[in-house]
Amino acid sequence: MFTIGILASGKGSNLQAIVKHVQNGFINAKIGVVISDNPDAGALEIARSAGIPAVYIEPGKYRTFLENHQEKKYVECLKQHGVELVCLAGFMRVIKKNFFREYQNRIINIHPSLLPSFRGLEAWKQALDYGVRFTGCTVHFVEEDIDTGPIILQAVVAVFDDDTPETLHQRIQEKEHVIYPLAIKIISENRLIRIEGRRVIIDEM
Amino acid sequence: MFTIGILASGKGSNLQAIVKHVQNGFINAKIGVVISDNPDAGALEIARSAGIPAVYIEPGKYRTFLENHQEKKYVECLKQHGVELVCLAGFMRVIKKNFFREYQNRIINIHPSLLPSFRGLEAWKQALDYGVRFTGCTVHFVEEDIDTGPIILQAVVAVFDDDTPETLHQRIQEKEHVIYPLAIKIISENRLIRIEGRRVIIDEM
Repeated sequence: MFTIGILASGKGSNLQAIVKHVQNGFINAKIGVVISDNPDAGALEIARSAGIPAVYIEPGKYRTFLENHQEKKYVECLKQHGVELVCLAGFMRVIKKNFFREYQNRIINIHPSLLPSFRGLEAWKQALDYGVRFTGCTVHFVEEDIDTGPIILQAVVAVFDDDTPETLHQRIQEKEHVIYPLAIKIISENRLIRIEGRRVIIDEM
Repeated sequence: MFTIGILASGKGSNLQAIVKHVQNGFINAKIGVVISDNPDAGALEIARSAGIPAVYIEPGKYRTFLENHQEKKYVECLKQHGVELVCLAGFMRVIKKNFFREYQNRIINIHPSLLPSFRGLEAWKQALDYGVRFTGCTVHFVEEDIDTGPIILQAVVAVFDDDTPETLHQRIQEKEHVIYPLAIKIISENRLIRIEGRRVIIDEM
């Protein structure tokens, strides 16, 4: 069975949505392992409750990325659990060459904006401050540059005049919980036909 | 009556949409003048057919902006016709300080993308090449930087796998012809209440 691995640093709301869609059969795949760089991540608790191997691996001494020999442990752990697709779900560190060597074009991420607008942190707040009428979320392949890989799916969220960062972020997350499981379903069913330049062509969309 | 002026370089499809919505009463304003930097612009023909003063003013020796003393003639012409709001509709030159001196915060533009994504030329093609699932169009205030002013309205257009630049551009233009007249209506009715930072707050949206 197609096996995915999830990296998460936070409370794990996207993990929760993925677990739900695996359990109800929408995604025909197995979650091999959930790994966190934060021993207190809610994501680890969600994994344990669902009977999924939940592993904390020390990130090392840097704040924004994994120390090289620690990153190797992440990749080894994913391989040990037979992971074919790595899904970043609120993982707060940039991943580097150990991942790309082993999982070239097999790492995906969800970002809370309509990329290429609002890369980086707190994208919902960036969108609100910029004054856009629409924002959303993006599932994309992960490349060595941040938030730039080919786009798999996007969803649109309208911005209201009375939105706060919190209300807008909540509506974006509701859409994340729809398109991230859908993207994983599509990849696990091998329906992602090809990438032309940067355009991702999906069967039966 | 609230009077708008339109600057256009090309065939004038947005002008056409604005003329239609003035004629059918959706916009309660008068088009005082249409000015072009291109004597053969279809926009001038559309204006003449609608009984609107249509003026060609030489742009001067530069390709991407108006020569200073020529730009002054544009502004004088707008003032002579009582223009209170300047609408750029496919005007292919960057406007400069003569305009901002006279029409501060009274110049608007329509851009064929969901700004801040895909500033600059052929934004529909940029969007297609980038592989986004959604693009659209944006009516925004014009500032001295290009395609950066506060956003008044946006509309979303889905990108299809079989889109060409032409098919995508056509669907974006259909939305432009909806939101540009609507933005002009809102401003002419004084329903644009205030700008908070970059956020444009509109009454009864």
